[in-house]
Amino acid sequence: MLKEEQRYETEPYYLVGKPVTRLDGREKVTGSAIYTHDLKVPNMLYGKIKRSTKPHAEIVSIDTSRALKLKGVRAVITGRDVPNTRRGVLVKDTPVLAVDRVRYVAEPVAAVAAETPEIAEEALDLIDVEYRELPAIFDPEEAMKKEPIVVIHPDFKSYTVKYLGAELGIPNLHAYFKVRKGDVEKGFEKCDQIVENSFRINMVHAFHLEPIVSMARVEPNGGITIWESTQHPYMLRNEISEALQIPLDKINVIVPHVGGGFGNKLVSVVAPITVALAKQTRRPVKIAFSRREVFEASYVRQPFTVHIKDGVTRDGRIVARKMTSIISGGGYSGGMGVNETKTSNCGFSHYKVDNFHYDAYRVYTNRVPGGPYRGFGAGQVNWAVESQMDMIAERLGLDPVEVRLRNLVEEGDKNVIGETMRSAEHKNMLRKAKELIGWGQKRSPDGPWRFGKGVASGHKWSFAPTASSAMVKYSFGGFLDAFVSTIDMGTGAQTILAQIAGEVLRIPLEKIRVSMPNTNFTPFSDGGFSSRQTYNDGNAVRLAALDLKKQIVERAAGVLGVDRMELDVREEKVYSAKDPKKAMKIDDLFMKGVSRGGAFAPVRDFIGAATWFQESGPLRAEDGQCTTDRACSFYDVVSTAAEVAVNIETGQIKILKIAVSVDPGTVLNPLLFEGQVQGSAFMAFSNTLFEDLVFEDGGLVNAELADYKIAGSKDAPEIVVSWGGSPFSDGPFGAKGIGEGPMLPTPAAIGNAVYDAIGVRIPDLPVTAEKVLVALKEKRGSG
Amino acid sequence: MLKEEQRYETEPYYLVGKPVTRLDGREKVTGSAIYTHDLKVPNMLYGKIKRSTKPHAEIVSIDTSRALKLKGVRAVITGRDVPNTRRGVLVKDTPVLAVDRVRYVAEPVAAVAAETPEIAEEALDLIDVEYRELPAIFDPEEAMKKEPIVVIHPDFKSYTVKYLGAELGIPNLHAYFKVRKGDVEKGFEKCDQIVENSFRINMVHAFHLEPIVSMARVEPNGGITIWESTQHPYMLRNEISEALQIPLDKINVIVPHVGGGFGNKLVSVVAPITVALAKQTRRPVKIAFSRREVFEASYVRQPFTVHIKDGVTRDGRIVARKMTSIISGGGYSGGMGVNETKTSNCGFSHYKVDNFHYDAYRVYTNRVPGGPYRGFGAGQVNWAVESQMDMIAERLGLDPVEVRLRNLVEEGDKNVIGETMRSAEHKNMLRKAKELIGWGQKRSPDGPWRFGKGVASGHKWSFAPTASSAMVKYSFGGFLDAFVSTIDMGTGAQTILAQIAGEVLRIPLEKIRVSMPNTNFTPFSDGGFSSRQTYNDGNAVRLAALDLKKQIVERAAGVLGVDRMELDVREEKVYSAKDPKKAMKIDDLFMKGVSRGGAFAPVRDFIGAATWFQESGPLRAEDGQCTTDRACSFYDVVSTAAEVAVNIETGQIKILKIAVSVDPGTVLNPLLFEGQVQGSAFMAFSNTLFEDLVFEDGGLVNAELADYKIAGSKDAPEIVVSWGGSPFSDGPFGAKGIGEGPMLPTPAAIGNAVYDAIGVRIPDLPVTAEKVLVALKEKRGSG
Repeated sequence: MLKEEQRYETEPYYLVGKPVTRLDGREKVTGSAIYTHDLKVPNMLYGKIKRSTKPHAEIVSIDTSRALKLKGVRAVITGRDVPNTRRGVLVKDTPVLAVDRVRYVAEPVAAVAAETPEIAEEALDLIDVEYRELPAIFDPEEAMKKEPIVVIHPDFKSYTVKYLGAELGIPNLHAYFKVRKGDVEKGFEKCDQIVENSFRINMVHAFHLEPIVSMARVEPNGGITIWESTQHPYMLRNEISEALQIPLDKINVIVPHVGGGFGNKLVSVVAPITVALAKQTRRPVKIAFSRREVFEASYVRQPFTVHIKDGVTRDGRIVARKMTSIISGGGYSGGMGVNETKTSNCGFSHYKVDNFHYDAYRVYTNRVPGGPYRGFGAGQVNWAVESQMDMIAERLGLDPVEVRLRNLVEEGDKNVIGETMRSAEHKNMLRKAKELIGWGQKRSPDGPWRFGKGVASGHKWSFAPTASSAMVKYSFGGFLDAFVSTIDMGTGAQTILAQIAGEVLRIPLEKIRVSMPNTNFTPFSDGGFSSRQTYNDGNAVRLAALDLKKQIVERAAGVLGVDRMELDVREEKVYSAKDPKKAMKIDDLFMKGVSRGGAFAPVRDFIGAATWFQESGPLRAEDGQCTTDRACSFYDVVSTAAEVAVNIETGQIKILKIAVSVDPGTVLNPLLFEGQVQGSAFMAFSNTLFEDLVFEDGGLVNAELADYKIAGSKDAPEIVVSWGGSPFSDGPFGAKGIGEGPMLPTPAAIGNAVYDAIGVRIPDLPVTAEKVLVALKEKRGSG
Repeated sequence: MLKEEQRYETEPYYLVGKPVTRLDGREKVTGSAIYTHDLKVPNMLYGKIKRSTKPHAEIVSIDTSRALKLKGVRAVITGRDVPNTRRGVLVKDTPVLAVDRVRYVAEPVAAVAAETPEIAEEALDLIDVEYRELPAIFDPEEAMKKEPIVVIHPDFKSYTVKYLGAELGIPNLHAYFKVRKGDVEKGFEKCDQIVENSFRINMVHAFHLEPIVSMARVEPNGGITIWESTQHPYMLRNEISEALQIPLDKINVIVPHVGGGFGNKLVSVVAPITVALAKQTRRPVKIAFSRREVFEASYVRQPFTVHIKDGVTRDGRIVARKMTSIISGGGYSGGMGVNETKTSNCGFSHYKVDNFHYDAYRVYTNRVPGGPYRGFGAGQVNWAVESQMDMIAERLGLDPVEVRLRNLVEEGDKNVIGETMRSAEHKNMLRKAKELIGWGQKRSPDGPWRFGKGVASGHKWSFAPTASSAMVKYSFGGFLDAFVSTIDMGTGAQTILAQIAGEVLRIPLEKIRVSMPNTNFTPFSDGGFSSRQTYNDGNAVRLAALDLKKQIVERAAGVLGVDRMELDVREEKVYSAKDPKKAMKIDDLFMKGVSRGGAFAPVRDFIGAATWFQESGPLRAEDGQCTTDRACSFYDVVSTAAEVAVNIETGQIKILKIAVSVDPGTVLNPLLFEGQVQGSAFMAFSNTLFEDLVFEDGGLVNAELADYKIAGSKDAPEIVVSWGGSPFSDGPFGAKGIGEGPMLPTPAAIGNAVYDAIGVRIPDLPVTAEKVLVALKEKRGSG
């Protein structure tokens, strides 16, 4: 029997699948959209942060007296002026301001609030910090040692640690995750070939256009209001509560427009300091990072070293796979960065392997902490796995596409973490990418230019368990408000939610408003990350809109005298599907019961509310196997194919074409879909060829835009996007999230194409002209 | 059978009936509460209004050119710069700025926005308005003529008029209401005595401490944000939409703390001008009235002339009553002032009269418009009726209390407008007031001082039909948000709603937050007037909290494995009433389904929502009879007794004691109850003895605090408050509203006491020493 909710959801759709332009488009294009950076409130002070100049040192003393005397300085705080708490999502290791020790260059050691940014800057120079230097570890292999040159967190055992798994006698070990399935050693015995390789994935930056920024104010009632460019206002509220020991109900987080995040604004590196200064001065304080600070002192994509040993049959099936990831975590947990030990599984779980063995170690190093970055650990591992797949194909003399097709998971398969695959169009996506790139047709050399094609597959899960709530309100006048805490950091999330609500109630887009997050008003969402908002916030909005629709229909049924199951709504009317003459304006429902001779027109609200909760089973600590058949919300399934030209004289690489094939379930909005997929592939292309954070003696040497190259519009290759697959039954109108998928296979598709062009493999990202030249030279030398 | 909701409502109460202090108390006492006056935003301009100097004139021309040239002036607008709309709740007669004619001194004719208030003020003097004077009508008797000296609204027939009833050939008639029951002429024939008198009730001002103020800003997305000290944010939104032709969804009304309203902030006299200036300048504009402007140009309690002819039996029963009210409405409808023709029925409907005949006429006069004032028309008529009751008693030689007891309505009676009386403890309240004042014990003269006691009865209805919505959200951490558009203009409304929500969910008060109104977020309420919020908003909050409780209980039932009908909640726990060992923290429900080894602690919201709608039947135009058995939400039933001392040499009146006896249903908070009742009685005392707006040639002569006397704390008499009656079944936990009741009988109780003391009756308010002396002189002359 048809469930009541489903009754309302029949094609042709009213708004779903329509290429509507973004609700925030006009504002953003005309420059009138307000970002946190734009905010100014009366009596506002400017905050600045004094940062460590040492990669690893004990703090002997901090003298703030000279700074405090500077005219216009209103407060100087150190770690002694804030509660002695350590924060972090899973491992609570990070102080608000360093107290006894610094663990990376640029770690916050003191903060100033002053009448102008210039005075605050000047005051920083007047803070005298005396350090006693300690040996520093930059190399994760050194950090992995059982007897390292130094232990970065000697008090580690006193921290709250939720997700370590095992300590394993490695003093600098920080987080650990393992997967065990079958028996790899027996697998290796049975196979025809062993293929074993190592790969390194470098440190890059998310590079959001809007730098880190927050403002805080103590309200007359003692509450704290925080405005921040954040991806997770509710987690920020929790963080501030924990770090500064303020009750949750005294904290309000408001999020203006967000100029990009890509994971780096998931856990704040600034808000506790802003709030501490506001509390100290009793005046509003704003801290805006310089571009240098963003590079030096906000989370980075953490470097991975991945070792893979595969046992394969001669027809290309992987019998056994043993993998190790070593993650250079930096000085602290890096927000959720610590969780990438676990989420790195999405870098390999798209292949069926009966005998599987994986260890991921995150170790402390004396670098800026690594944190979430679009792709969340899976991108790094996918580079290794998808490079390895081509190396297997080469060893066996097989087509790389064929080798993948023989190993990719399918609908209903159990993957290596024991989860049943749903909406798993991996093979079709790969076939589509192959078709789009013209697989098998190779261009002839042109002068120094050699041409090649490569493919890669991947999938990115969306985190679960997770919850989102939504409230919707239909007002007299025919317009709808959706109250959600959804972050639209440039993704079009607000527009998607408006389409979902508008689909349920058949309201035109211009009559729908979607709230910006304000934790005092808008209900809980688990934040804007892991490609989760369309699916989770979208499901919440859909259910809330259905709740509201039910109320309208029930009330109208009484007025019109028809069975409510007959009724439907569209464009401010409620009508009988059987007899469309039985209809009324929804506005008239608001008036029902009002005396005609009376004075007023009472307006009722129709209010719907719902919580969506994606249940899932945890991964067991002992073998990484899922305790139920579901570990995540969905998989964003993607294949990328690339065609490149490589100049054998200069090493220069040109991308001729990138083809991305995605299974998004239902495409709710083709424009936004294409924008997300192109943006994701473009970002992956940029970090594959160009991006790299370079250090000398612990200090970052390219912390300015002039020195840190990202791809610009003139570098942009042609990016072809296609979609396939079927509606995903659990998603709103069948949709899944799409923001991260193309980040995964795109780098390896490029690397594999480079190999196809010149027969040289660059195992370590980025794939630069310099590395290509060196490798070509080595090849010639050895050949 | 017990309904599910009732299951949760059993004494002893958790918060209901407790004398908790106000949620906003600390903020207000420490001066940190933010009022609209306190707001300042970047780039804000200051608006000022050019006002008519003529009581009645045609506008020949307005020349703004000199004003526009003044440095710092950003805009000067006249009626030609805004849409040609006329506004008003029932009669749409009021332009935003006068276009062709002014109808009272101080009517807005132009407005200026400038960089400073001083420049704006200076610019006003540079606006040249040429008038052609017209005859002015100040006397409502003149306005009642079929051929008056002038017609104030010659285009009246072109206006939208919702509530006139009949035109009756009176060109200046504005609104009309009549009641017809039985046959008064036959009644007069049957009775023993005819008692006929006239009374006049003067013009006074609500005198809220915070003057009229509003601020408006055009947002980047084109929407309009209005901050205003208003009693009805949703109606303000409607008003602006209608006046300036802006869609409802483009307007957001935010209400900071409100420093008193008493009806005068129900319909804005400033917001359309503020918004028009903000639209014109594209900058935020704030207009703050001076005290003089508040007196001259905001609504006043409109003057009534009431004529009563009663036919009574010798034992004091009223057989027939014929009444007429003539209301001097001023130049325009005065917001809802026009509706006082109808609501004046509460001034007489507490008496059963079989033969009843009432006409109320509101006529245009060339005065500032009369508008809502605590008691809303009923206060004026009650003065006449309750003076008359004593005059009947005197004529018949009966005790005034006895005469009242023989005529007051009782539970289940049909009153003169055909409504069935509910919660009608009128007789008990009168008996209690009599007891409290020591009725029958008279003090002996003391020098020039004579002593007397008086009583009066009354009731004030609360408007219906009316609607309120509420949303409540229970958050991880055990705190509750109630989202309502309730106005707390000093009444403690927020605290009452917190008590109601906290009672349902048994949450301590410090864990409850009640929102301030923000029409973009908080759901509809019909506003803060007619003593309606405790009852209507309170019922909405109660139902929303029950909705939320149901969700908690249902979820816990599954987790605890017990029937949900067994479960109850208290202080962050849900537990079985049968087996209290079966219990869990509500916080733990949020975590249910989360993997123990997992990374996050998803937080679900529990969200409840509800709309309360008080249905009622309209009063028929032809006879004022209610079409159902209910015309209002409830009656606030009050009796006042007063003891006075009158100095026969100076005429001075001292109030020795006021005793107020109220039936509030359940007292939700004794402190707030007492505060409201004392405040209401005190305000009535002040306007009975002191307050009077005095005009000369159409202009107000006492428009400053130095000249307009209101009672201060040194004038305060002892005010004794008592309550009786039973819980009112329709109210939240049995409560009714209490804000207006004591305004009604208190003046007449004082007037009757004065008569009791010196044998002289002052039929026209205020009862001043001067009037007493003149009357004493006349009495001696005639005696």
